[in-house]
Amino acid sequence: MKGVVIIVGLGPGSEKLISPEVQQAIISATDIVGYKQYTNRIKPRKNLTIHSSDNKHELSRAKLAVKLALEGKRVVIVSSGDPGIFAMSSAFFEYIENTKENIDKIDIKVMPGISSMLAASSRIGAPLGHDFCVINLSDNLKPWKLIKKRIVSAVQSDFVIVFFNPRSKARPRILMKTFDILQNHSECDRLVLFAKSVYKENEELKIVKLSKADYRLADMNTLVIVGSSLSRIIKGKKKFFYTPRYFVS
Amino acid sequence: MKGVVIIVGLGPGSEKLISPEVQQAIISATDIVGYKQYTNRIKPRKNLTIHSSDNKHELSRAKLAVKLALEGKRVVIVSSGDPGIFAMSSAFFEYIENTKENIDKIDIKVMPGISSMLAASSRIGAPLGHDFCVINLSDNLKPWKLIKKRIVSAVQSDFVIVFFNPRSKARPRILMKTFDILQNHSECDRLVLFAKSVYKENEELKIVKLSKADYRLADMNTLVIVGSSLSRIIKGKKKFFYTPRYFVS
Repeated sequence: MKGVVIIVGLGPGSEKLISPEVQQAIISATDIVGYKQYTNRIKPRKNLTIHSSDNKHELSRAKLAVKLALEGKRVVIVSSGDPGIFAMSSAFFEYIENTKENIDKIDIKVMPGISSMLAASSRIGAPLGHDFCVINLSDNLKPWKLIKKRIVSAVQSDFVIVFFNPRSKARPRILMKTFDILQNHSECDRLVLFAKSVYKENEELKIVKLSKADYRLADMNTLVIVGSSLSRIIKGKKKFFYTPRYFVS
Repeated sequence: MKGVVIIVGLGPGSEKLISPEVQQAIISATDIVGYKQYTNRIKPRKNLTIHSSDNKHELSRAKLAVKLALEGKRVVIVSSGDPGIFAMSSAFFEYIENTKENIDKIDIKVMPGISSMLAASSRIGAPLGHDFCVINLSDNLKPWKLIKKRIVSAVQSDFVIVFFNPRSKARPRILMKTFDILQNHSECDRLVLFAKSVYKENEELKIVKLSKADYRLADMNTLVIVGSSLSRIIKGKKKFFYTPRYFVS
Protein backbone atom coordinates (compact mmCIF):
# COMPACT_ATOMS: atom_id res chain seq x y z
CA MET A 1 0.00 0.00 0.00
CA LYS A 2 1.08 3.54 -0.76
CA GLY A 3 2.53 5.40 2.21
CA VAL A 4 0.91 8.55 3.46
CA VAL A 5 2.09 11.85 4.94
CA ILE A 6 -0.59 13.93 6.64
CA ILE A 7 0.40 17.33 8.02
CA VAL A 8 -2.02 18.28 10.77
CA GLY A 9 -2.73 21.16 13.14
CA LEU A 10 -3.34 20.36 16.80
CA GLY A 11 -4.69 23.83 17.62
CA PRO A 12 -3.06 26.05 20.22
CA GLY A 13 -2.90 23.69 23.17
CA SER A 14 -6.24 22.32 24.33
CA GLU A 15 -7.58 18.94 23.28
CA LYS A 16 -11.01 20.60 23.00
CA LEU A 17 -9.84 22.34 19.86
CA ILE A 18 -8.53 19.35 17.88
CA SER A 19 -10.85 18.61 14.94
CA PRO A 20 -12.39 15.13 14.63
CA GLU A 21 -10.61 14.79 11.29
CA VAL A 22 -7.20 15.28 12.93
CA GLN A 23 -8.10 13.02 15.86
CA GLN A 24 -8.91 10.29 13.34
CA ALA A 25 -5.64 10.80 11.47
CA ILE A 26 -3.69 10.39 14.71
CA ILE A 27 -5.59 7.23 15.62
CA SER A 28 -4.77 5.71 12.20
CA ALA A 29 -1.11 6.75 12.16
CA THR A 30 1.83 4.36 12.39
CA ASP A 31 4.30 7.21 12.94
CA ILE A 32 4.12 10.70 14.39
CA VAL A 33 6.78 13.24 13.45
CA GLY A 34 7.21 16.66 15.02
CA TYR A 35 8.82 19.17 17.31
CA LYS A 36 8.95 17.57 20.74
CA GLN A 37 6.75 20.23 22.34
CA TYR A 38 3.97 19.08 20.01
CA THR A 39 4.65 15.34 19.88
CA ASN A 40 4.38 15.46 23.71
CA ARG A 41 0.68 16.03 23.18
CA ILE A 42 0.28 12.63 21.49
CA LYS A 43 -0.61 9.68 23.73
CA PRO A 44 1.86 6.82 23.25
CA ARG A 45 0.30 3.50 22.24
CA LYS A 46 1.23 0.14 20.79
CA ASN A 47 2.14 0.18 17.08
CA LEU A 48 2.77 3.90 17.11
CA THR A 49 6.28 5.29 16.81
CA ILE A 50 6.77 8.87 17.88
CA HIS A 51 9.72 10.73 16.32
CA SER A 52 10.45 13.93 18.24
CA SER A 53 12.96 16.53 17.22
CA ASP A 54 14.23 19.91 18.32
CA ASN A 55 13.00 23.24 17.11
CA LYS A 56 14.12 24.55 13.69
CA HIS A 57 14.58 21.06 12.26
CA GLU A 58 11.69 21.49 9.85
CA LEU A 59 13.41 20.16 6.74
CA SER A 60 14.84 17.11 8.47
CA ARG A 61 11.39 16.33 9.84
CA ALA A 62 9.99 16.54 6.32
CA LYS A 63 12.78 14.25 5.09
CA LEU A 64 12.09 11.68 7.80
CA ALA A 65 8.35 11.74 7.11
CA VAL A 66 8.89 11.14 3.39
CA LYS A 67 11.39 8.34 4.08
CA LEU A 68 8.90 6.57 6.36
CA ALA A 69 6.05 7.04 3.88
CA LEU A 70 8.19 5.54 1.11
CA GLU A 71 8.45 2.46 3.35
CA GLY A 72 4.64 2.32 3.34
CA LYS A 73 4.04 3.98 6.70
CA ARG A 74 1.12 6.23 7.61
CA VAL A 75 2.92 9.29 8.90
CA VAL A 76 1.33 12.24 10.67
CA ILE A 77 3.41 15.42 11.04
CA VAL A 78 2.07 17.45 13.94
CA SER A 79 2.13 21.25 14.19
CA SER A 80 0.55 23.43 16.79
CA GLY A 81 -2.22 25.80 15.64
CA ASP A 82 -2.77 25.46 11.92
CA PRO A 83 -0.02 23.70 9.95
CA GLY A 84 -0.26 26.20 7.09
CA ILE A 85 0.54 29.33 9.12
CA PHE A 86 4.24 29.64 9.94
CA ALA A 87 4.36 25.93 10.71
CA MET A 88 5.25 22.61 9.05
CA SER A 89 3.25 22.69 5.77
CA SER A 90 5.38 25.19 3.92
CA ALA A 91 8.62 23.50 5.04
CA PHE A 92 7.24 20.15 3.91
CA PHE A 93 6.40 21.43 0.43
CA GLU A 94 9.80 23.07 0.20
CA TYR A 95 11.35 19.66 0.82
CA ILE A 96 9.04 17.95 -1.68
CA GLU A 97 9.86 20.56 -4.31
CA ASN A 98 13.52 19.61 -3.95
CA THR A 99 12.90 15.86 -4.04
CA LYS A 100 10.23 15.80 -6.70
CA GLU A 101 10.97 12.22 -7.69
CA ASN A 102 8.95 11.20 -4.59
CA ILE A 103 5.89 13.32 -5.12
CA ASP A 104 3.75 10.63 -6.76
CA LYS A 105 5.10 7.77 -4.69
CA ILE A 106 3.31 8.86 -1.52
CA ASP A 107 -0.06 10.39 -0.66
CA ILE A 108 0.25 13.91 0.75
CA LYS A 109 -2.50 15.60 2.69
CA VAL A 110 -2.86 18.66 4.91
CA MET A 111 -5.53 18.97 7.61
CA PRO A 112 -6.30 22.42 9.01
CA GLY A 113 -6.27 23.30 12.70
CA ILE A 114 -7.40 26.24 14.79
CA SER A 115 -4.67 28.83 14.46
CA SER A 116 -3.48 30.52 17.64
CA MET A 117 -4.60 33.86 16.20
CA LEU A 118 -8.19 32.66 15.98
CA ALA A 119 -8.01 31.20 19.48
CA ALA A 120 -6.42 34.35 20.94
CA SER A 121 -9.01 36.49 19.22
CA SER A 122 -11.88 34.40 20.60
CA ARG A 123 -10.63 34.69 24.17
CA ILE A 124 -10.86 38.47 24.18
CA GLY A 125 -13.73 39.31 21.79
CA ALA A 126 -13.27 39.97 18.08
CA PRO A 127 -10.11 41.96 17.32
CA LEU A 128 -9.91 40.41 13.83
CA GLY A 129 -13.42 41.62 12.94
CA HIS A 130 -12.11 43.75 10.07
CA ASP A 131 -9.33 43.50 7.45
CA PHE A 132 -6.03 42.36 8.94
CA CYS A 133 -2.42 41.41 8.16
CA VAL A 134 -0.41 38.56 9.58
CA ILE A 135 3.34 39.05 9.90
CA ASN A 136 5.98 36.66 11.19
CA LEU A 137 8.56 38.77 13.03
CA SER A 138 11.29 36.18 12.76
CA ASP A 139 14.06 37.42 10.51
CA ASN A 140 15.68 33.98 10.17
CA LEU A 141 14.38 33.48 6.65
CA LYS A 142 13.67 36.97 5.39
CA PRO A 143 15.44 40.33 5.61
CA TRP A 144 14.46 42.81 8.30
CA LYS A 145 14.06 45.44 5.55
CA LEU A 146 11.12 43.52 4.11
CA ILE A 147 9.53 43.02 7.52
CA LYS A 148 9.79 46.74 8.15
CA LYS A 149 8.25 47.60 4.80
CA ARG A 150 5.31 45.33 5.56
CA ILE A 151 4.77 46.79 9.03
CA VAL A 152 4.71 50.31 7.59
CA SER A 153 2.28 49.32 4.80
CA ALA A 154 0.01 47.56 7.21
CA VAL A 155 -0.25 50.42 9.67
CA GLN A 156 -0.55 53.10 6.99
CA SER A 157 -3.52 51.25 5.51
CA ASP A 158 -5.01 50.87 8.99
CA PHE A 159 -5.08 47.08 9.03
CA VAL A 160 -5.32 45.19 12.30
CA ILE A 161 -1.94 43.42 12.54
CA VAL A 162 -1.16 40.01 14.00
CA PHE A 163 2.48 39.36 14.89
CA PHE A 164 3.73 35.79 15.15
CA ASN A 165 7.07 35.05 16.81
CA PRO A 166 7.41 38.45 18.47
CA ARG A 167 10.32 37.33 20.60
CA SER A 168 13.05 34.73 20.73
CA LYS A 169 16.42 34.35 22.33
CA ALA A 170 18.15 35.32 19.12
CA ARG A 171 16.01 38.41 18.57
CA PRO A 172 14.97 39.73 21.98
CA ARG A 173 14.29 43.27 20.78
CA ILE A 174 12.64 42.86 17.38
CA LEU A 175 9.27 43.68 18.95
CA MET A 176 10.65 46.89 20.43
CA LYS A 177 11.77 47.98 16.97
CA THR A 178 8.32 46.99 15.67
CA PHE A 179 6.51 49.11 18.26
CA ASP A 180 8.73 52.07 17.38
CA ILE A 181 7.85 51.77 13.70
CA LEU A 182 4.16 51.49 14.50
CA GLN A 183 4.26 54.59 16.68
CA ASN A 184 6.10 56.58 14.05
CA HIS A 185 3.44 55.74 11.47
CA SER A 186 0.22 55.76 13.53
CA GLU A 187 -1.98 58.78 13.85
CA CYS A 188 -3.58 57.39 16.99
CA ASP A 189 -2.54 55.40 20.03
CA ARG A 190 -3.59 51.90 19.02
CA LEU A 191 -4.49 49.07 21.38
CA VAL A 192 -2.12 46.13 21.66
CA LEU A 193 -3.11 42.65 22.84
CA PHE A 194 -0.50 40.33 24.31
CA ALA A 195 -2.00 36.84 24.24
CA LYS A 196 0.20 34.38 26.09
CA SER A 197 -0.27 30.58 26.18
CA VAL A 198 -3.79 30.78 24.82
CA TYR A 199 -6.14 27.94 25.87
CA LYS A 200 -3.49 26.63 28.26
CA GLU A 201 -3.49 26.63 32.05
CA ASN A 202 -1.16 29.61 32.26
CA GLU A 203 -3.10 31.69 29.71
CA GLU A 204 -2.64 35.42 30.14
CA LEU A 205 -4.25 38.21 28.15
CA LYS A 206 -3.18 41.81 28.47
CA ILE A 207 -4.27 44.90 26.53
CA VAL A 208 -2.21 48.09 26.64
CA LYS A 209 -1.92 51.23 24.55
CA LEU A 210 0.85 51.22 21.96
CA SER A 211 2.54 54.17 23.70
CA LYS A 212 2.84 52.05 26.84
CA ALA A 213 3.54 48.70 25.16
CA ASP A 214 6.67 47.07 26.54
CA TYR A 215 8.18 44.38 24.33
CA ARG A 216 9.07 42.40 27.46
CA LEU A 217 5.38 41.59 27.89
CA ALA A 218 5.87 39.06 25.09
CA ASP A 219 7.64 35.75 25.44
CA MET A 220 8.10 32.88 22.99
CA ASN A 221 4.52 31.69 23.55
CA THR A 222 2.92 35.07 22.95
CA LEU A 223 0.93 36.29 20.00
CA VAL A 224 0.65 40.06 19.60
CA ILE A 225 -2.37 41.70 17.95
CA VAL A 226 -2.28 45.43 17.25
CA GLY A 227 -5.69 46.97 16.63
CA SER A 228 -6.69 49.32 13.81
CA SER A 229 -7.66 52.92 14.55
CA LEU A 230 -11.21 51.68 15.20
CA SER A 231 -10.45 48.72 17.50
CA ARG A 232 -11.81 49.37 20.97
CA ILE A 233 -12.53 48.00 24.40
CA ILE A 234 -15.96 47.33 25.88
CA LYS A 235 -15.75 47.32 29.64
CA GLY A 236 -18.00 45.35 31.92
CA LYS A 237 -16.78 43.13 34.74
CA LYS A 238 -15.07 41.35 31.88
CA LYS A 239 -13.22 43.34 29.23
CA PHE A 240 -13.77 42.73 25.51
CA PHE A 241 -11.54 43.90 22.66
CA TYR A 242 -13.10 44.13 19.23
CA THR A 243 -12.80 45.73 15.81
CA PRO A 244 -16.04 46.91 14.24
CA ARG A 245 -17.16 45.59 10.88
CA TYR A 246 -17.80 49.08 9.56
CA PHE A 247 -15.36 51.82 8.70
CA VAL A 248 -16.46 55.42 8.91
CA SER A 249 -14.09 57.63 6.98
CA MET B 1 -29.09 30.95 36.65
CA LYS B 2 -27.35 33.52 34.48
CA GLY B 3 -28.09 33.21 30.78
CA VAL B 4 -25.30 32.57 28.31
CA VAL B 5 -24.46 33.60 24.76
CA ILE B 6 -21.77 31.57 23.03
CA ILE B 7 -20.71 32.62 19.55
CA VAL B 8 -19.24 29.60 17.78
CA GLY B 9 -17.63 28.70 14.46
CA LEU B 10 -18.82 25.58 12.66
CA GLY B 11 -15.90 25.51 10.24
CA PRO B 12 -16.39 25.69 6.49
CA GLY B 13 -18.94 22.95 5.97
CA SER B 14 -17.84 19.51 7.10
CA GLU B 15 -18.77 18.03 10.46
CA LYS B 16 -15.21 16.64 10.59
CA LEU B 17 -13.94 20.14 11.25
CA ILE B 18 -16.17 21.13 14.19
CA SER B 19 -14.12 21.30 17.40
CA PRO B 20 -15.17 19.16 20.38
CA GLU B 21 -15.63 22.40 22.36
CA VAL B 22 -18.20 23.69 19.87
CA GLN B 23 -19.91 20.31 19.63
CA GLN B 24 -20.34 20.38 23.41
CA ALA B 25 -21.73 23.93 23.35
CA ILE B 26 -24.35 22.89 20.79
CA ILE B 27 -25.34 19.85 22.85
CA SER B 28 -25.83 22.03 25.96
CA ALA B 29 -27.72 24.83 24.16
CA THR B 30 -31.41 25.64 24.68
CA ASP B 31 -31.45 27.97 21.67
CA ILE B 32 -29.54 28.25 18.42
CA VAL B 33 -29.49 31.56 16.58
CA GLY B 34 -28.05 32.11 13.11
CA TYR B 35 -28.28 32.61 9.40
CA LYS B 36 -30.45 29.82 8.06
CA GLN B 37 -27.70 28.36 5.86
CA TYR B 38 -25.75 27.66 9.09
CA THR B 39 -28.62 26.73 11.43
CA ASN B 40 -29.54 24.11 8.82
CA ARG B 41 -26.39 22.30 9.93
CA ILE B 42 -27.78 21.83 13.46
CA LYS B 43 -29.73 18.63 14.14
CA PRO B 44 -33.16 19.44 15.62
CA ARG B 45 -33.91 17.82 18.97
CA LYS B 46 -36.28 18.08 21.93
CA ASN B 47 -35.74 21.12 24.16
CA LEU B 48 -33.79 22.95 21.48
CA THR B 49 -35.29 25.94 19.67
CA ILE B 50 -33.63 26.94 16.41
CA HIS B 51 -34.04 30.59 15.37
CA SER B 52 -33.07 31.03 11.72
CA SER B 53 -32.84 34.34 9.94
CA ASP B 54 -31.90 35.72 6.57
CA ASN B 55 -28.51 37.01 5.56
CA LYS B 56 -27.42 40.50 6.68
CA HIS B 57 -29.55 40.41 9.85
CA GLU B 58 -26.49 40.27 12.11
CA LEU B 59 -27.61 42.93 14.59
CA SER B 60 -31.12 41.54 14.96
CA ARG B 61 -29.61 38.10 15.59
CA ALA B 62 -27.42 39.60 18.32
CA LYS B 63 -30.47 41.32 19.81
CA LEU B 64 -32.47 38.10 19.85
CA ALA B 65 -29.59 36.17 21.43
CA VAL B 66 -29.21 38.74 24.22
CA LYS B 67 -32.99 38.81 24.83
CA LEU B 68 -33.08 35.02 25.20
CA ALA B 69 -30.01 35.00 27.47
CA LEU B 70 -31.63 37.65 29.70
CA GLU B 71 -34.48 35.14 30.11
CA GLY B 72 -31.89 32.64 31.37
CA LYS B 73 -31.44 30.66 28.18
CA ARG B 74 -28.22 29.05 26.93
CA VAL B 75 -27.91 30.54 23.48
CA VAL B 76 -25.45 29.50 20.81
CA ILE B 77 -24.97 31.82 17.83
CA VAL B 78 -23.62 29.82 14.89
CA SER B 79 -21.30 31.17 12.21
CA SER B 80 -19.58 29.26 9.47
CA GLY B 81 -15.76 29.17 9.54
CA ASP B 82 -14.43 31.14 12.49
CA PRO B 83 -16.90 33.53 14.16
CA GLY B 84 -14.24 36.23 14.53
CA ILE B 85 -13.40 36.61 10.83
CA PHE B 86 -16.05 38.57 8.94
CA ALA B 87 -18.76 36.70 10.81
CA MET B 88 -21.00 37.08 13.87
CA SER B 89 -18.56 38.01 16.68
CA SER B 90 -17.88 41.58 15.65
CA ALA B 91 -21.58 42.26 15.01
CA PHE B 92 -22.42 40.82 18.41
CA PHE B 93 -19.93 43.06 20.21
CA GLU B 94 -21.19 46.05 18.25
CA TYR B 95 -24.67 45.31 19.59
CA ILE B 96 -23.38 44.83 23.15
CA GLU B 97 -21.47 48.10 22.97
CA ASN B 98 -24.75 49.85 22.21
CA THR B 99 -26.72 48.06 24.95
CA LYS B 100 -24.06 48.08 27.64
CA GLU B 101 -26.59 47.78 30.45
CA ASN B 102 -26.78 44.07 29.62
CA ILE B 103 -23.09 43.26 29.52
CA ASP B 104 -22.82 41.93 33.07
CA LYS B 105 -26.26 40.31 33.13
CA ILE B 106 -25.25 37.51 30.79
CA ASP B 107 -22.17 35.36 30.21
CA ILE B 108 -20.55 35.98 26.85
CA LYS B 109 -18.14 33.60 25.23
CA VAL B 110 -16.59 33.08 21.80
CA MET B 111 -15.36 29.70 20.56
CA PRO B 112 -13.05 29.61 17.55
CA GLY B 113 -13.61 27.54 14.43
CA ILE B 114 -11.58 26.56 11.40
CA SER B 115 -11.71 29.53 9.09
CA SER B 116 -12.45 28.87 5.43
CA MET B 117 -9.06 30.39 4.56
CA LEU B 118 -7.24 27.75 6.59
CA ALA B 119 -9.38 24.99 5.10
CA ALA B 120 -8.92 26.27 1.53
CA SER B 121 -5.21 26.58 2.09
CA SER B 122 -4.95 23.01 3.42
CA ARG B 123 -6.75 21.56 0.37
CA ILE B 124 -4.14 22.85 -2.04
CA GLY B 125 -0.87 22.92 -0.07
CA ALA B 126 0.38 25.92 1.90
CA PRO B 127 -0.33 29.22 0.12
CA LEU B 128 -0.38 31.07 3.48
CA GLY B 129 3.11 29.86 4.38
CA HIS B 130 4.48 33.41 4.54
CA ASP B 131 3.15 36.84 5.64
CA PHE B 132 -0.36 37.54 4.36
CA CYS B 133 -3.25 40.01 4.41
CA VAL B 134 -6.94 39.26 4.69
CA ILE B 135 -9.35 41.66 3.00
CA ASN B 136 -13.13 41.57 2.88
CA LEU B 137 -14.14 42.84 -0.56
CA SER B 138 -17.65 43.77 0.50
CA ASP B 139 -18.10 47.52 0.38
CA ASN B 140 -21.32 47.47 2.38
CA LEU B 141 -19.67 48.78 5.54
CA LYS B 142 -16.52 50.50 4.32
CA PRO B 143 -15.67 52.77 1.39
CA TRP B 144 -14.21 51.33 -1.79
CA LYS B 145 -11.42 53.89 -1.53
CA LEU B 146 -10.14 52.22 1.64
CA ILE B 147 -10.39 48.74 0.12
CA LYS B 148 -8.39 49.94 -2.86
CA LYS B 149 -5.71 51.48 -0.65
CA ARG B 150 -5.34 48.22 1.23
CA ILE B 151 -5.10 46.14 -1.95
CA VAL B 152 -2.34 48.41 -3.28
CA SER B 153 -0.41 48.31 0.04
CA ALA B 154 -0.71 44.56 0.25
CA VAL B 155 0.56 43.89 -3.25
CA GLN B 156 3.32 46.50 -3.08
CA SER B 157 4.67 44.84 0.06
CA ASP B 158 4.41 41.44 -1.61
CA PHE B 159 1.99 39.91 0.89
CA VAL B 160 -0.07 36.87 -0.03
CA ILE B 161 -3.65 38.21 -0.08
CA VAL B 162 -6.84 36.42 0.94
CA PHE B 163 -10.08 37.92 -0.36
CA PHE B 164 -13.33 37.17 1.45
CA ASN B 165 -16.67 37.94 -0.22
CA PRO B 166 -15.21 38.38 -3.71
CA ARG B 167 -18.62 38.44 -5.34
CA SER B 168 -22.23 39.09 -4.53
CA LYS B 169 -25.35 40.04 -6.44
CA ALA B 170 -24.96 43.66 -5.38
CA ARG B 171 -21.27 43.83 -6.41
CA PRO B 172 -20.77 41.41 -9.30
CA ARG B 173 -17.63 43.15 -10.59
CA ILE B 174 -15.71 44.17 -7.50
CA LEU B 175 -13.30 41.29 -8.07
CA MET B 176 -12.65 42.43 -11.63
CA LYS B 177 -11.66 45.85 -10.30
CA THR B 178 -9.49 44.11 -7.72
CA PHE B 179 -7.65 42.05 -10.33
CA ASP B 180 -7.04 45.22 -12.36
CA ILE B 181 -5.48 46.96 -9.37
CA LEU B 182 -3.32 43.94 -8.61
CA GLN B 183 -2.06 43.77 -12.19
CA ASN B 184 -1.27 47.47 -12.24
CA HIS B 185 0.85 47.13 -9.11
CA SER B 186 2.48 43.71 -9.56
CA GLU B 187 5.87 43.24 -11.10
CA CYS B 188 5.12 39.61 -11.84
CA ASP B 189 2.19 37.49 -12.93
CA ARG B 190 0.98 36.14 -9.60
CA LEU B 191 -0.94 32.92 -9.08
CA VAL B 192 -4.58 33.11 -8.05
CA LEU B 193 -6.48 30.35 -6.28
CA PHE B 194 -10.25 30.17 -6.54
CA ALA B 195 -11.44 27.89 -3.73
CA LYS B 196 -15.13 27.14 -4.05
CA SER B 197 -17.27 25.32 -1.44
CA VAL B 198 -14.26 24.01 0.42
CA TYR B 199 -14.76 20.72 2.31
CA LYS B 200 -18.20 20.33 0.72
CA GLU B 201 -19.37 17.84 -1.89
CA ASN B 202 -19.12 20.34 -4.71
CA GLU B 203 -15.65 21.58 -3.73
CA GLU B 204 -13.71 23.05 -6.64
CA LEU B 205 -10.16 24.40 -6.62
CA LYS B 206 -8.70 26.28 -9.54
CA ILE B 207 -5.35 28.05 -9.93
CA VAL B 208 -4.78 30.53 -12.73
CA LYS B 209 -2.33 33.31 -13.45
CA LEU B 210 -3.48 36.80 -12.52
CA SER B 211 -3.29 37.88 -16.18
CA LYS B 212 -5.83 35.18 -17.02
CA ALA B 213 -7.96 35.43 -13.88
CA ASP B 214 -11.64 35.91 -14.71
CA TYR B 215 -13.75 37.30 -11.90
CA ARG B 216 -16.60 35.05 -12.99
CA LEU B 217 -14.68 32.05 -11.64
CA ALA B 218 -15.79 33.25 -8.18
CA ASP B 219 -19.28 32.88 -6.79
CA MET B 220 -20.68 33.69 -3.36
CA ASN B 221 -19.11 30.56 -1.86
CA THR B 222 -15.63 31.23 -3.18
CA LEU B 223 -12.54 32.38 -1.36
CA VAL B 224 -9.78 33.91 -3.50
CA ILE B 225 -6.11 33.69 -2.52
CA VAL B 226 -3.55 35.65 -4.52
CA GLY B 227 0.01 34.46 -4.06
CA SER B 228 3.09 36.59 -3.39
CA SER B 229 5.87 36.87 -5.95
CA LEU B 230 7.36 33.67 -4.49
CA SER B 231 4.21 31.51 -4.36
CA ARG B 232 4.52 28.60 -6.74
CA ILE B 233 3.09 25.34 -7.99
CA ILE B 234 4.60 21.89 -7.49
CA LYS B 235 3.31 19.54 -10.14
CA GLY B 236 2.91 15.85 -9.68
CA LYS B 237 -0.23 13.89 -10.52
CA LYS B 238 -1.72 16.18 -7.93
CA LYS B 239 -0.92 19.89 -8.00
CA PHE B 240 0.22 21.76 -4.87
CA PHE B 241 0.29 25.53 -4.37
CA TYR B 242 2.58 26.89 -1.69
CA THR B 243 4.45 29.94 -0.51
CA PRO B 244 7.99 29.35 0.79
CA ARG B 245 8.94 30.35 4.31
CA TYR B 246 12.04 32.15 3.11
CA PHE B 247 12.34 35.34 1.16
CA VAL B 248 15.35 35.87 -1.03
CA SER B 249 15.75 39.54 -1.87
